[in-house]
Amino acid sequence: MDRPEVPELAPPDRTLMGPGPSDVHPRVLRAMATPLVGHLDPAFVEIMDETQELLRYAFRTDNEWTIPVSGTGSASMEAAIGNVVEPGETMLVPTNGYFGGRMAEMARRAGGEVVEVDAPWGEPLNPADVADAFDEYQPDVFGFVHAETSTGVRQPDVPELTGIAHDHDAVVIADCVTSLGGVELRVDEWDIDVAYAGPQKCLSCPPGASPLTLSDDAMEKVLSREAPPRSWYLDLSLLEGYWGDERAYHHTAPVTNVYALREALRLVAEEGIERRWERHRETAGALKAGVEAMGVGLEPDDEYWLPSLNAVSVPDGVDDAAVIDDLLDGYDLEIASGLGDLAGEILRVGCMGHSARPANVSLLVSALGTALRDRGADVDVAAGAETVAERL
Amino acid sequence: MDRPEVPELAPPDRTLMGPGPSDVHPRVLRAMATPLVGHLDPAFVEIMDETQELLRYAFRTDNEWTIPVSGTGSASMEAAIGNVVEPGETMLVPTNGYFGGRMAEMARRAGGEVVEVDAPWGEPLNPADVADAFDEYQPDVFGFVHAETSTGVRQPDVPELTGIAHDHDAVVIADCVTSLGGVELRVDEWDIDVAYAGPQKCLSCPPGASPLTLSDDAMEKVLSREAPPRSWYLDLSLLEGYWGDERAYHHTAPVTNVYALREALRLVAEEGIERRWERHRETAGALKAGVEAMGVGLEPDDEYWLPSLNAVSVPDGVDDAAVIDDLLDGYDLEIASGLGDLAGEILRVGCMGHSARPANVSLLVSALGTALRDRGADVDVAAGAETVAERL
Repeated sequence: MDRPEVPELAPPDRTLMGPGPSDVHPRVLRAMATPLVGHLDPAFVEIMDETQELLRYAFRTDNEWTIPVSGTGSASMEAAIGNVVEPGETMLVPTNGYFGGRMAEMARRAGGEVVEVDAPWGEPLNPADVADAFDEYQPDVFGFVHAETSTGVRQPDVPELTGIAHDHDAVVIADCVTSLGGVELRVDEWDIDVAYAGPQKCLSCPPGASPLTLSDDAMEKVLSREAPPRSWYLDLSLLEGYWGDERAYHHTAPVTNVYALREALRLVAEEGIERRWERHRETAGALKAGVEAMGVGLEPDDEYWLPSLNAVSVPDGVDDAAVIDDLLDGYDLEIASGLGDLAGEILRVGCMGHSARPANVSLLVSALGTALRDRGADVDVAAGAETVAERL
Repeated sequence: MDRPEVPELAPPDRTLMGPGPSDVHPRVLRAMATPLVGHLDPAFVEIMDETQELLRYAFRTDNEWTIPVSGTGSASMEAAIGNVVEPGETMLVPTNGYFGGRMAEMARRAGGEVVEVDAPWGEPLNPADVADAFDEYQPDVFGFVHAETSTGVRQPDVPELTGIAHDHDAVVIADCVTSLGGVELRVDEWDIDVAYAGPQKCLSCPPGASPLTLSDDAMEKVLSREAPPRSWYLDLSLLEGYWGDERAYHHTAPVTNVYALREALRLVAEEGIERRWERHRETAGALKAGVEAMGVGLEPDDEYWLPSLNAVSVPDGVDDAAVIDDLLDGYDLEIASGLGDLAGEILRVGCMGHSARPANVSLLVSALGTALRDRGADVDVAAGAETVAERL
């Protein structure tokens, strides 16, 4: 217990093209350096209102119940599942990626029964399979992952999925961690009851306050639970007192993270949400074209390609961990390995928010091509670089 | 869902002398503006190690299990209670303040039974009462509040309390939210098994990553639970994979909040923890003397006075809410009202971390005296100001 001698904070200057966090815009960093006001200050209440309004815009929803949860994306996920799923209820979850498995785990801890609808890792759910699962299990809650960060798959046919669930009076929870602010997402139009996200993906905001939205009907279910949810910290009926009209103290909000989220969402509003989706398609499209021009594959079909998270196939004989290390050591460039069923099979390359820029994509394709070549893959680095230059 | 027009972030410039957050040091604000690295980056792993080492220093512990929990103080509180208390176990909690009640609520949600040891709001626990409660209930877990933010009471006799608990083989959980970094606290020497805190009190760090420490024995209890804890997000057996040697992904750590906490703790180490406790006693002592010189009372006895949170008696006939508004509107100065049994009885004046400075104390005593006088109290503002000037 001697007095530790720890040097001044000086982390390396990385370019973040992994599954998140993404590069943070300088305006958001500056917002985080703003001196604090109290979490019950009238000035902060106004900042809360503005943040909620901006969040509704990004989610494409009029839901009154749209808030940042005081924690990282997994906290907004547990707030959704832990409040909506009541003990003894059944939740239907997908098996086509890491985050469906996490949904199952959270539902069980909430006291729920879990049933599954299957699809392979790297493919989306088929609506027919979802319909079959509903007929077989009659679940109370249906969770699906709109943008699977572990596989780079975007779930198409969302309105069809929510339609099936609502025909069976189930509540729909959508994991939008890697889609909010980067990939087309229309909570109201697509009839999603509950959606949660992380701030550190396509919003390019440091993690710590995480978006969550619930429809009035979903919130009514939460407020009329027989037993309280098993987490006090994430109890939405208590948070209602703070974020609602009453402004009652529940816990100390992460003031600085709300400042940051507000600024990140201002950038979304300034750009325009649809223009922002388009920018992600354009820049990630150049990334995809560049990788393919080098002779390297991208895993998912074009039909369910997820611009914000690109699953690059690891060429035969290449050590994926070595490539990741080469990029970090040689270029200060972060990407990530595959998870679960796709470990060793894919490299996960994010293209999110402020990271979805020509400079980042250009660096990524050249550096990745070079590293793959150096590690024994047969890739045409020049063709990749040229394709990116033409596209951007 | 029109594009919202939200102005640039420009909160008022407050002086924070409430129950937290406190004023944040410019170096900590600057750390929050640092660009991010990934939460699995080797550079971040080093930052995690340094933060843990600094936390151990502040807690006065060698506990390996010393981490920041990814959330505000209530998250570290729920991580402590939700992991240690197993379904069917009994937790003994105090009734002498708001936060004992919150302990009870969290223990119930964890599946525990709750029993109580009584003391009035505004007084500490009496060890004899704790011993009686142990004899009567034989609880598995004993929680107490070292620094009660709702009443301004510091619990003395901590080694006596932990001794009683250990004689009965109970695990001791201490709420140190408002003591860590400001008031004498010796986790190892006092034999506290589990302690949690908030960063936004005496550490003067923005909320969002909250200190928690567990002894090896307490962690062994957590790791040998029959059923997993009811929160996935706060499951310490899973967090062990991330903060331990394995560095496995659990959730995305709030990178920026860890940067901030590290910097706030560096300031603690530079000052020296014992010198820092002394500074709190000195500056809060001047505050206390100034308030008393004006003819206004401070609630708790000197014996259990809590320097970081001063419970100023509301003079007869004075509207406490009006005084609070006057200070905010007229001086950009934040203090807070009483809670629960002490609502309307006390004003809560913090003196924490970077707020525990002569300039803040001087402003506080003069402004508070003036506001009380303007609202009808018989106070000697000049005597208060003079006393503060002499003491500081």
